[in-house]
Amino acid sequence: MQPHMGMLALIPTAGVAALITSIYLILYVVRQPKGDEKMQEIAGAIREGALAFLSRQYRTIGILAVVVALILLVAVRGPQGWHTAIAFLTGALASAISGYIGMYTAVTANLRAAAAARRSLNDALRVAFRGGAITGLAVTTLSLLGVTAIFYAYGGASHPQEAPLLIVGFGFGASFVALFAQLGGGIYTKAADVGADLVGKVEAGIPEDDPRNPAVVADLVGDNVGDCAGRGADLFESTAAENIGAMILGIALFPIFGVNGILFPLVARSVGVIASILGILSVRVRRDDEPPMNALNRGYLVTIILVAIGLFFVTREMLNGGGKVDYLYFYGAALVGVLTSYIFVWTTQYYTEYRYRPVREIAQASTTGPATNIIAGVSVGFESTAIPVVVMSAAILAAYWLGSMALPGGGLYGTAVATMGMLSTVAYVLAMDTYGPITDNAGGITEMSGAPEEARERTDRLDASGNTTKALTKGYAVGSAALAAFLLFSAYIDEVKHLLGLAPDHPFPIDIGQPKVFVGAFIGAMLVLLFSSTAIRAVGRAAQVVIQEVRRQFREVPGIMEGTGRPEYGKCVDIVTVGALKQMVIPGLVVVVTPVLVGAILKAEAAAAFLMIGTIVGVIMALFLNNGGGAWDNAKKFIEAGNLGGKGSDSHKAAVVGDTVGDPFKDTAGPSLHVLVKLLSTITLVLAWLFI
Amino acid sequence: MQPHMGMLALIPTAGVAALITSIYLILYVVRQPKGDEKMQEIAGAIREGALAFLSRQYRTIGILAVVVALILLVAVRGPQGWHTAIAFLTGALASAISGYIGMYTAVTANLRAAAAARRSLNDALRVAFRGGAITGLAVTTLSLLGVTAIFYAYGGASHPQEAPLLIVGFGFGASFVALFAQLGGGIYTKAADVGADLVGKVEAGIPEDDPRNPAVVADLVGDNVGDCAGRGADLFESTAAENIGAMILGIALFPIFGVNGILFPLVARSVGVIASILGILSVRVRRDDEPPMNALNRGYLVTIILVAIGLFFVTREMLNGGGKVDYLYFYGAALVGVLTSYIFVWTTQYYTEYRYRPVREIAQASTTGPATNIIAGVSVGFESTAIPVVVMSAAILAAYWLGSMALPGGGLYGTAVATMGMLSTVAYVLAMDTYGPITDNAGGITEMSGAPEEARERTDRLDASGNTTKALTKGYAVGSAALAAFLLFSAYIDEVKHLLGLAPDHPFPIDIGQPKVFVGAFIGAMLVLLFSSTAIRAVGRAAQVVIQEVRRQFREVPGIMEGTGRPEYGKCVDIVTVGALKQMVIPGLVVVVTPVLVGAILKAEAAAAFLMIGTIVGVIMALFLNNGGGAWDNAKKFIEAGNLGGKGSDSHKAAVVGDTVGDPFKDTAGPSLHVLVKLLSTITLVLAWLFI
Repeated sequence: MQPHMGMLALIPTAGVAALITSIYLILYVVRQPKGDEKMQEIAGAIREGALAFLSRQYRTIGILAVVVALILLVAVRGPQGWHTAIAFLTGALASAISGYIGMYTAVTANLRAAAAARRSLNDALRVAFRGGAITGLAVTTLSLLGVTAIFYAYGGASHPQEAPLLIVGFGFGASFVALFAQLGGGIYTKAADVGADLVGKVEAGIPEDDPRNPAVVADLVGDNVGDCAGRGADLFESTAAENIGAMILGIALFPIFGVNGILFPLVARSVGVIASILGILSVRVRRDDEPPMNALNRGYLVTIILVAIGLFFVTREMLNGGGKVDYLYFYGAALVGVLTSYIFVWTTQYYTEYRYRPVREIAQASTTGPATNIIAGVSVGFESTAIPVVVMSAAILAAYWLGSMALPGGGLYGTAVATMGMLSTVAYVLAMDTYGPITDNAGGITEMSGAPEEARERTDRLDASGNTTKALTKGYAVGSAALAAFLLFSAYIDEVKHLLGLAPDHPFPIDIGQPKVFVGAFIGAMLVLLFSSTAIRAVGRAAQVVIQEVRRQFREVPGIMEGTGRPEYGKCVDIVTVGALKQMVIPGLVVVVTPVLVGAILKAEAAAAFLMIGTIVGVIMALFLNNGGGAWDNAKKFIEAGNLGGKGSDSHKAAVVGDTVGDPFKDTAGPSLHVLVKLLSTITLVLAWLFI
Repeated sequence: MQPHMGMLALIPTAGVAALITSIYLILYVVRQPKGDEKMQEIAGAIREGALAFLSRQYRTIGILAVVVALILLVAVRGPQGWHTAIAFLTGALASAISGYIGMYTAVTANLRAAAAARRSLNDALRVAFRGGAITGLAVTTLSLLGVTAIFYAYGGASHPQEAPLLIVGFGFGASFVALFAQLGGGIYTKAADVGADLVGKVEAGIPEDDPRNPAVVADLVGDNVGDCAGRGADLFESTAAENIGAMILGIALFPIFGVNGILFPLVARSVGVIASILGILSVRVRRDDEPPMNALNRGYLVTIILVAIGLFFVTREMLNGGGKVDYLYFYGAALVGVLTSYIFVWTTQYYTEYRYRPVREIAQASTTGPATNIIAGVSVGFESTAIPVVVMSAAILAAYWLGSMALPGGGLYGTAVATMGMLSTVAYVLAMDTYGPITDNAGGITEMSGAPEEARERTDRLDASGNTTKALTKGYAVGSAALAAFLLFSAYIDEVKHLLGLAPDHPFPIDIGQPKVFVGAFIGAMLVLLFSSTAIRAVGRAAQVVIQEVRRQFREVPGIMEGTGRPEYGKCVDIVTVGALKQMVIPGLVVVVTPVLVGAILKAEAAAAFLMIGTIVGVIMALFLNNGGGAWDNAKKFIEAGNLGGKGSDSHKAAVVGDTVGDPFKDTAGPSLHVLVKLLSTITLVLAWLFI
């Protein structure tokens, strides 16, 4: 089979389209009015803090990344060592750049969105969403073009069956940066949040986002570093990992599809980018009183429909095997993927929104105190793992079956196609995600600058929709992490077979009854809990530092409580930055070192079991932590909306406890686990040769 | 190899010794003074409630068990169906009987221990501990003799290589009853506890164990049904499952050891029973002010030393293979098991006692409120899984290596020997465990009967040591459940190979890269969380019923708060009984049905992955729930001892929240998970033929 040049042309087309759209969006955002001086001052402080955090964080990660690259160079001898090390650094760099772009646009758009909120809801929505869209497009396109470029750089044109394995290092680099970005950002955001709340709201009795609170800027910075930079790196990594995993699985079908099977993932992703661009540009509210969420949902629907149409043509052109393969089955697999992403997002809503039973149950339990609130939340969090697991299982089995129907031995490729379907809307979803912290920041700026009631009310509504989009993206991110990990797991099995000289359709000779396999699995599960423990504890430790600093300022800065003395915001930002970065190193390194040790000591079979169980437990714990945390958050909001006693009641106090507990669950440990599962996969895949 | 009759004689010897000792202990306990009328009245109410719960619970379980037996009879056709069904019912019955004995002696000894506390600490300790010892001996001996009897009944003398597989049904029956006993008992005990506390302490402001609280008797009944009947059934099952699993692994070595390899587990257990008897009889405090825990630890040490000596002779006699096998390696494996149990117990102490860092950390976090208390507790609970997993992994690998050194292909048998070593002290450990609820009840009776200060102070000290022994036993129970499940998992692999006509040393042909294997594993992990969710929620639901009943009585019973009107204790007991039993059925059946469905639909390979991951995640979650709950409990006790503000301070209030959250974790969900992992193993083993 010859490469389908018409389809391959979609890759640069998508790249150029994304570039033009991004420039258009950037110009759109930058040209918006910046509001009054007070607002600009606050936004300037946030921007400064956020960029300072990022540059310090990247310095730490950069040093670690160079060390790992050197180790790869020494450990993996010969040209493959060079290939892997360079791919690793490229992936790391691309991930860092996409994090930086996301952060930069967010701290640019937040001020404009706040200013726009003084005019109309629609203006504010468009500024915030288009700011988010820049991140979505940048992340997705960088991943697409990065993988494509390194594929061709490593001889993808001349020997396409070997190049995909050489670029695994790219995924490893991306997940390496993503882990630290998500973990460090997650610790920062919650330490600042918890610290600001405990001293400000609880001890000093001043409202949230009050300018007298020295930690308030750090809190607003935190939204950016956690949700923008962190989640951006996470999904950059998911898209890169899925592309690479799917390309590796495409190698096995080279005799049938030729290079088209290997490049299909990249073309499918390109279709997703183009569809997302059109979806993004379509977003607007129809009336000033329309809920912002409706507008975002319409745009999502546009994207999904365009993707579904586009994928039909791509599968027809690239996966027909010269007329010998029934490509409609593969198209079916792609639709399974799209449907799965929809159900994941829906389940997340069901478990975390107060319209439904689970959050109501937690709110009800709050009436008998904090203990019953916590018990109900844990119970809901545990329960919320069930539907996603069943859906994920059904999707994997259905896609495998469809792939096998399309052609014998095409099962795994069917799951790869489904994964591409699921992640095809990623640019749009990321736009919605980054919209979250922008609206949150816009609300904070509006509050702190003493804006008129009308503007506050608008940013509150935007903020509420931003909370929803953040929660949904987490559901989407777990689902995509699980599928990406499944692909990479399958790719690992393929690679081990290859290294052992076995045919791809030969069963992987793992003796599950061997103790070392059981032990590998045992350690995989334990690692997830140990990591979660350290991540949660890190928030507490970093928060203590913030609390002490805020108390000191309240004590020492003259006139601070009367509003005449200016709090030292920058001091707080610095302190959280140093605290969070210090706490992120050890847990991050444990995650990197453990799979290497398990593989090197207990060998490839145990590493496979380690990887499988680590992935599964990681996904399940992420679901528990994310959904439990989200449900607690909204149970509090349900009571604050005037139910079960409303704000200030004992029920509310109990619900605040649950919300605080949920914070490090849903914003630190949970999201870091998405990255962990992908990091485990890429690291074992890169080092598979060491485990034989 | 001929059967070693000298060694086999130890089995009936142990049985007779246990019987004589039990009779001696029963007579000792029964002859003790029963205290004044007030005490007898209260103890009578507890006894009545406990026995009523048990008979209702057994009626429900009995119906379910008969249905399962009929299904087995129909599903497993031919004589094997009869064998399995009868073994199942025998196991179920034996488990029920041991639960009944434990409960009966506990409700007999509690009153005598309370009466003895008016005389001296030593008297009270001996009565309570000897009461507990009756349970320990009864449970262990019934399991030993039950397995032995059914082994010979199914032709163990003529064809010893086939009999072990026929008796798997015994383990299935035992775990079936144990699951419901532990789950139902766990829901009962915590629903009564939470209900009594929330209305009594919090709403009405009366102290714990106050006779005016209508739920106080239900609370005391709960200690018996959860910790005696529940844990008794749990450890009955562990011993039965380990015996059976080890015997099945002994079949593979039949050419070398003959029937001795198959019967070694029973003889090793007999040695443990005899050693435990001597250990039990040695327990006494040296002075009235010696901590009771010291006396119990001395007895444990005596037992361990005797076991270590006894096992040397048993391995030398039974595992020398006619001089061709270096039995010392097997003896080494047995010592590894003994050591593992010690480390497990030590780790549990480290994570749950307030002398050490983890509990202190939680107590410290309580000073900043309930939210930080919960976060710290979850973090400690997650962390507490690490050491046990590493120890368990090291033990499995070391025992496997020792077994392989003893003879080629002897690795798995090495792990079986280690397991026998670990569980050899089970009778003593169970005695310590049942001691817990007896002292707890004695404290309650003393409190309610208005005993002199001196007696109260003694029962408080006994109660504190009882809390420690209960926590330790849980650590021991998880460890033994994990090892038992590993043995049964290995036995399952052996059985599948046998059914497929493969040699025992042939690798099990599981293709870990197949989606259905991944899906089986995914569902295994999810089942554990779903079950935990329903178990935790069940406590909340049943507690609501108690709360309403207590409120009703406070409202309607005249003179109840003045102490002139008598609360209707029995009404509360009835209501919790019905509530708890109703809540236990659905989660229990889900656990039974899911492995059958996974195996029947996705077949043996997926079932193996399901079993492996279900076991691992079950053990890890049990560790998290048990240790987290225990740590919260003792963080509260640490503050109550006068630290960080002491009783009544804000720190104390925060710690009470953690304690309440931990209750359903450590006494309902956690212990039920021990049983769950063994039930998954026995059920897949019994139905392995269905999965091919």
